[in-house]
Amino acid sequence: MTDIELKAGERIDQIAATDVQIIQSRDVFSFSIDAILLARFPRLPKKGKIVDMCAGNGVVGLFASSMTDSQIIGLEIQERLAEMTQRSIKLNGLDEQITVINDNLNKALNYITTSSVDLIFCNPPYFKLDDKSHVNENHHYTLARHELATNLDEIFETSKRLLKTNGHLALVHRPERFFEIIDKMKKNHLVPKRIQFVYPKANQAANILLIDAIKDGKPGGEIFLPPLIVHDDSGNYTAEIQEIYYGKA
Amino acid sequence: MTDIELKAGERIDQIAATDVQIIQSRDVFSFSIDAILLARFPRLPKKGKIVDMCAGNGVVGLFASSMTDSQIIGLEIQERLAEMTQRSIKLNGLDEQITVINDNLNKALNYITTSSVDLIFCNPPYFKLDDKSHVNENHHYTLARHELATNLDEIFETSKRLLKTNGHLALVHRPERFFEIIDKMKKNHLVPKRIQFVYPKANQAANILLIDAIKDGKPGGEIFLPPLIVHDDSGNYTAEIQEIYYGKA
Repeated sequence: MTDIELKAGERIDQIAATDVQIIQSRDVFSFSIDAILLARFPRLPKKGKIVDMCAGNGVVGLFASSMTDSQIIGLEIQERLAEMTQRSIKLNGLDEQITVINDNLNKALNYITTSSVDLIFCNPPYFKLDDKSHVNENHHYTLARHELATNLDEIFETSKRLLKTNGHLALVHRPERFFEIIDKMKKNHLVPKRIQFVYPKANQAANILLIDAIKDGKPGGEIFLPPLIVHDDSGNYTAEIQEIYYGKA
Repeated sequence: MTDIELKAGERIDQIAATDVQIIQSRDVFSFSIDAILLARFPRLPKKGKIVDMCAGNGVVGLFASSMTDSQIIGLEIQERLAEMTQRSIKLNGLDEQITVINDNLNKALNYITTSSVDLIFCNPPYFKLDDKSHVNENHHYTLARHELATNLDEIFETSKRLLKTNGHLALVHRPERFFEIIDKMKKNHLVPKRIQFVYPKANQAANILLIDAIKDGKPGGEIFLPPLIVHDDSGNYTAEIQEIYYGKA
């Protein structure tokens, strides 16, 4: 371990079924199951360029680094989180593979060449500005949860510009905005191909949505992957989720 | 039982968890699980008007008659099937509740008043005309499976005209055409609200799609209901499907 300094309230956690460590803080940001489900969702390019939009504390890129040799670029608007990611990268000795850009994602083209990216991950703010139901007093959480600094139009417009033809955008979002997402992806030539719904329990409606879209893909023939169910009837993780978190038994 | 005449190749079956009997024929038409899943999918109006489009041998309307006092009107283009339904209606003494119209669904407005219907069921042909993968030599099956006599545009256009404001269209279809369906519904002011995916097994991609759309509904807030899984790992029906077919144990 290197001499990484932790700030007040920070801790170091291990990411799911990897050896990768990550700095987290309850006051600022700690990753949720959504990020883990997103990171393991798309097929990763072996060697190529991956961008992680709305990177938070870098969890998706850090997780992905354990499965690919591709270059990984995180984009995060919050300086506090970008800096936290930077220390996590150092902590794991991943400076050669992962870099972080601390800027708004609509500035991505200032840093990354047009049509050069193989895969974009995005775990964006889920709630519209006028949706007050999940408002948090904490500014860090508000920015991560509400479309204050970015929105779907901007995310898809930027994705279209960054991706190569046939490059992939892997998005995690909420099912109640699915049709809006599909519609806005279409306007940006992003064609959803693999979709997976995640259900809290087998008898509950879906609460997480995963979409793998292809830039300039041929419309039609979309596939709805097997359902992911998070908890069994007793409230424990199902075997599938345990495998994602802790690896194969 | 009344003196219903069976034609060559016909048999009488019972429909799932009901006392309703239905005339079927392997040579012409026998219902599949899709019809049963559709019939139990939407909330039924207690007293009102229900239309069953692409009614086949009448299975959806016959099933629904066991759960509602609404008037049920079947629309079926094939004379052989409409006539078969007519005998099933007699067989069950349901002449007062169910009627069958033997015509193309684009002629529905000749028989049914505009904006008068509470609920439309539709189990339409799934395959495009240029999709040769499921072609059958049997003309009855070809008409039921391929968009030869009707298509999605016509179905949604007719549904829009028949339904009251806030009336429901319950559709069963194939997941690989989901985005096309959503798009064409939107053009006809049909707003999908409740969606359910059906998976052959827990670890397989969805192969049936159920949609409950509301005429002139407010867009957004769509709900993806708990997954329906048909078979367990041993190939037997799951408890949920058994309940649908045979009633609560």
